[in-house]
Amino acid sequence: MQATKVSMDTIVSLSKRRGFVYPSSEIYGGYASFWDYGPMGVELKRNIKDAWWQDIVRRRPEVVGLETSIIMHPQVWQASGHLQNFNDLLVDCRNCKQRFRADHLPSYEENVAKGLPNPLEGIACPNCGVRDQWTDARPFNTMFKTYVGPVEDEANTTYLRPETAQGMFVQFANVLGSSRQKLPFGIAQMGKSFRNEITTGNFIFRLRELEQMELEYFVRPGDDDHWYEYWRDYTMEWFTGLGAKRENLRLRPHDPATLSHYSKGTTDLEYLFPFGWGELWGVANRTDFDLKAHSAGSGQQLTYFDEETREHIVPYVIEPALGVDRAFLVFMLDAYDEEPDKDGTRVVLRFHPRLAPVKVAVLPLSKKEPLASTARELRDQLSTRYAAEYDETGSIGKRYRRQDEIGTPLCVTVDFQTQEDNAVTIRDRDSMSQDRVPLAELEAAIRAKLGF
Amino acid sequence: MQATKVSMDTIVSLSKRRGFVYPSSEIYGGYASFWDYGPMGVELKRNIKDAWWQDIVRRRPEVVGLETSIIMHPQVWQASGHLQNFNDLLVDCRNCKQRFRADHLPSYEENVAKGLPNPLEGIACPNCGVRDQWTDARPFNTMFKTYVGPVEDEANTTYLRPETAQGMFVQFANVLGSSRQKLPFGIAQMGKSFRNEITTGNFIFRLRELEQMELEYFVRPGDDDHWYEYWRDYTMEWFTGLGAKRENLRLRPHDPATLSHYSKGTTDLEYLFPFGWGELWGVANRTDFDLKAHSAGSGQQLTYFDEETREHIVPYVIEPALGVDRAFLVFMLDAYDEEPDKDGTRVVLRFHPRLAPVKVAVLPLSKKEPLASTARELRDQLSTRYAAEYDETGSIGKRYRRQDEIGTPLCVTVDFQTQEDNAVTIRDRDSMSQDRVPLAELEAAIRAKLGF
Repeated sequence: MQATKVSMDTIVSLSKRRGFVYPSSEIYGGYASFWDYGPMGVELKRNIKDAWWQDIVRRRPEVVGLETSIIMHPQVWQASGHLQNFNDLLVDCRNCKQRFRADHLPSYEENVAKGLPNPLEGIACPNCGVRDQWTDARPFNTMFKTYVGPVEDEANTTYLRPETAQGMFVQFANVLGSSRQKLPFGIAQMGKSFRNEITTGNFIFRLRELEQMELEYFVRPGDDDHWYEYWRDYTMEWFTGLGAKRENLRLRPHDPATLSHYSKGTTDLEYLFPFGWGELWGVANRTDFDLKAHSAGSGQQLTYFDEETREHIVPYVIEPALGVDRAFLVFMLDAYDEEPDKDGTRVVLRFHPRLAPVKVAVLPLSKKEPLASTARELRDQLSTRYAAEYDETGSIGKRYRRQDEIGTPLCVTVDFQTQEDNAVTIRDRDSMSQDRVPLAELEAAIRAKLGF
Repeated sequence: MQATKVSMDTIVSLSKRRGFVYPSSEIYGGYASFWDYGPMGVELKRNIKDAWWQDIVRRRPEVVGLETSIIMHPQVWQASGHLQNFNDLLVDCRNCKQRFRADHLPSYEENVAKGLPNPLEGIACPNCGVRDQWTDARPFNTMFKTYVGPVEDEANTTYLRPETAQGMFVQFANVLGSSRQKLPFGIAQMGKSFRNEITTGNFIFRLRELEQMELEYFVRPGDDDHWYEYWRDYTMEWFTGLGAKRENLRLRPHDPATLSHYSKGTTDLEYLFPFGWGELWGVANRTDFDLKAHSAGSGQQLTYFDEETREHIVPYVIEPALGVDRAFLVFMLDAYDEEPDKDGTRVVLRFHPRLAPVKVAVLPLSKKEPLASTARELRDQLSTRYAAEYDETGSIGKRYRRQDEIGTPLCVTVDFQTQEDNAVTIRDRDSMSQDRVPLAELEAAIRAKLGF
């Protein structure tokens, strides 16, 4: 299947109309870079998270889950380096007073790479076009600040986490103590993170409130290159296995000169978004940086006892870090398809069956009894196992189109024959073929078609 | 089965030892009223949330899900009344400088109910015992504050949500527009909420960062009493259906004099915690208060068009609001059991099979081959459907006890006979009975024993 190249506007509009994504606080004019998930979106998001959890945690005997709090002790961010390093460089244009992230200005990063003493020199303001009216660049820490307890002072200041990863390092000893894992082993976490972004936009690509799925995979020093390559390749397999298109994905190794301070090597799985290539899943070799940093910060030993060598070692860690919202956007974009049909254009979201928000819709050909009751009972019965919807409104053709637009793989139609032959029709989203199936074999037929 | 009455200390200690719950940021001395979920805890929590989502959203055709952001536009909290009303009354003891929530002081609420002009009069400080050294009570808003964007001023101030409910009211029109529901219908959400509590403690009962599962069930005005009773009774059924003990639960209607400003009636499902009766699941008839408040605040119409009467109406809403962390604590407490056995005491968590973090453990009788490989392959195969664990360390009796302590309903043992008879033993957590089952029938036997 060749996908239609779809614009972001089309996806934003479909998302709102069919209940995938709404602007947050929309009745109050919206709130920049915050978005909400509607009835279909929340199911798609759950399915993405469940697929990741199933594949990364439950299927793998050497990976365990964890859920640490969003608000942690401020010393966590001192020790991790976030208080010092989690900054964006801000500049203002003196002419039009607009504020920008320096590294988002055209040519800024090239100028830095060239080693220019003032990398802002000669850059025109993207807003007013005037050159060289930049203020000095100044660092802005993008962690959201808050106060714990009734007094708003420095002693009570802490931050919303900008990544879930630090939770795994801080709880490393507890997890090791209660799960008795041997190297290599992983600790995985899904959850919200917060970044006070200055440049906003691009729908759910860059969010101030985002959700992450992160794995910290602890390995013996020396085995780190092997596991770095393993997880790098895994990212591509996982996305294509769930229906993302190979031609829209690429692996981009970071230039060694621009690596984060903690990283020995980083590769991003990138996706060709409507606005260009963008980071989807970052895989970093964080070495022993984090465990050593928290060991130094807390005075606690964060090591692994190697029973073979009888030594305490500090493992290296490979981190595949994926944003749920970006994964959501990728699966929406790659699922989107349009094809001409007799009524004009059929819009269909070709989701992988594991990801589709609704697996099966049950449609009575008419609202009349006993068709409607039979269809309703069928939905109730199927819903013990599959996300199932009932719809009786409008012509059957219109109802098929509605299900196509939310990506429902199968429609089960109850018709006037059903009372006589105890059979229903299963209609396939992609091929639009229709099979007559006896009611007694319906669940087995659905299982065979969905693959689970 | 008669449960052992268990102390909170026992549960806190088991939770840490077996990876259910850890103190947050523990290597930095912990952080008051923040807790983390370990490998077993995260699975138990997921199972509780999945059970709720399955029962409340997926099984019910008239309920849809939603996920709104934690950080919303500050006008949401202005319109909802939280900026004015979400306060605790704080008082300090002038003698010992300790700070208290006034309504947590002994006799304070009785004195308010009696109508005393100064309800603090005569109350002794619970810390130093001195009477009548109280400062005036002053309101403290318990929403966590933060700043969106780089400038920390009033215009950029907003709050972490203290409840998920407002998201459903703010997105009411969008959900209605994209899901075409008819009254009565519900919008459900699970997610984190934050409350800057002053009095902390009692493990995960009162948290500053908590997770909620809330349903807003919209009904025709006039039908609200019926649905209020329906959902009130449902709370009891849901908990007992998942293994909570009837004798530890009670429904307590609020005194009409102490109802929240938005409520026509509230009943709490309460549980007998080790420290006494405490709120578990609050069911409130919020009337049309919230939709009207946000309609007034935003200038947008938040109504439902009744096709029968051709009128726009503002629905009433019944809200069953449950804390995930409290549900977690209840299921831990009611699952806990001790029984004498030949080695001393057997500790067993008698979780309902839907909630157990691990459904089945596969244990080779010996680490020798081919037993270990057979057991590992069996675990991999079972893990496509059930959370499954492999354990080869220690005597078989010790491994059964380890599984009992995390509440695993079934253990599958691969022994020296397995190679010959192609069969394994299934050991039941509660009865400790052992059945020999052919490998070809293993999945069916597990399904029959677990019930899914």
